[in-house]
Amino acid sequence: MQRAKCSVFIATSLDGFISRTDGSIDWLNKANKLMPPGEDCGYAQFMSTVDTLVMGRNTFDQVRTFDPWPYGLTPVVVLTSHPLDLALPSLVSDTVSASSDPPEAVVERLTAEGKRHLYVDGGRTVQSFLAAGLVDELIITTIPVLLGAGRPLFANVGSSGGGGGGDVELAHVATRAFDFGFVQSKYRVKRDGDDEDGDDDGKRQEQA
Amino acid sequence: MQRAKCSVFIATSLDGFISRTDGSIDWLNKANKLMPPGEDCGYAQFMSTVDTLVMGRNTFDQVRTFDPWPYGLTPVVVLTSHPLDLALPSLVSDTVSASSDPPEAVVERLTAEGKRHLYVDGGRTVQSFLAAGLVDELIITTIPVLLGAGRPLFANVGSSGGGGGGDVELAHVATRAFDFGFVQSKYRVKRDGDDEDGDDDGKRQEQA
Repeated sequence: MQRAKCSVFIATSLDGFISRTDGSIDWLNKANKLMPPGEDCGYAQFMSTVDTLVMGRNTFDQVRTFDPWPYGLTPVVVLTSHPLDLALPSLVSDTVSASSDPPEAVVERLTAEGKRHLYVDGGRTVQSFLAAGLVDELIITTIPVLLGAGRPLFANVGSSGGGGGGDVELAHVATRAFDFGFVQSKYRVKRDGDDEDGDDDGKRQEQA
Repeated sequence: MQRAKCSVFIATSLDGFISRTDGSIDWLNKANKLMPPGEDCGYAQFMSTVDTLVMGRNTFDQVRTFDPWPYGLTPVVVLTSHPLDLALPSLVSDTVSASSDPPEAVVERLTAEGKRHLYVDGGRTVQSFLAAGLVDELIITTIPVLLGAGRPLFANVGSSGGGGGGDVELAHVATRAFDFGFVQSKYRVKRDGDDEDGDDDGKRQEQA
């Protein structure tokens, strides 16, 4: 069985941070206020294709404070080695489970359960999935601000050597620039044996 | 006298590195081979507006190995605290000078000399100019690869605190996505007192 597709959909500052050092996303909330009503940068459309979220403990501890709960009845798997204190409404807590398994095992299990499209969220979780070669698609929305410091989206992915053997090669799929300054790019992770020229996906280009 | 405009025109990996940890840009040279003949991602047009380059010692030590010398007769100021060994053709060495002055003093001097547009190049030099509030415009070309480690374009810019007082706010000017996978975005650095809505520049959008 083909394993479930794993996608990343995330916003970063231009210098590549997903939150400040203390986890704050005040800069993102401020930027989001520039979005016109009804605009969501493709988030709802993306979510409509997702059947399970996989996120780290830090991300979960942030989203659990959101009211209303943002994921409806979509199952959420929280990667954590500590038990979850699920002080959530019962309809929600029924959709949330914890796992201390490594990414490969999580994806294998969800695939066996019939899941087809996983939304992988949170810095360290994205990094561990990338390191395991499990990310298929990255949709990154760049916010026009430099924070100077914070929690990076990317870190310790690929090799640190000079040979490039550990590089993660990407195919650019599409870029949209929004009037309010956000730039969203979609990339597909290339696999060994991919045509060097990419496929049609690599040549399509969308515009806001 | 209005100080000379300071622009950055640089390529980075998607994870924000301008070279590997050892300074190698093999990944960039490989990516550049995907560019069709005659395509330069706007470099020549940009260079035609530049009257002086300001770069760090690391960048200079790299470009001095290029044959032919890439900057013609455009003056180059190398920021370094060590004397330059100018083993360069004399016509070139006439255009290269060294300075151990801080960014503010360099820009002030060049402005007084009548320079109008400085091309600020190299990671640490860009960072020091950003920290000094001297960068007006950033043109960043993102290469579709994750290196995992290397020398970052951005580091220690703005504050590291949670308050955001040191954030560098940008206005998005334009983004171009190229068929061969590069994505180039142009940003203007906002100044105190800038209209929050930006100006026309912030709403223009170009397409490759």
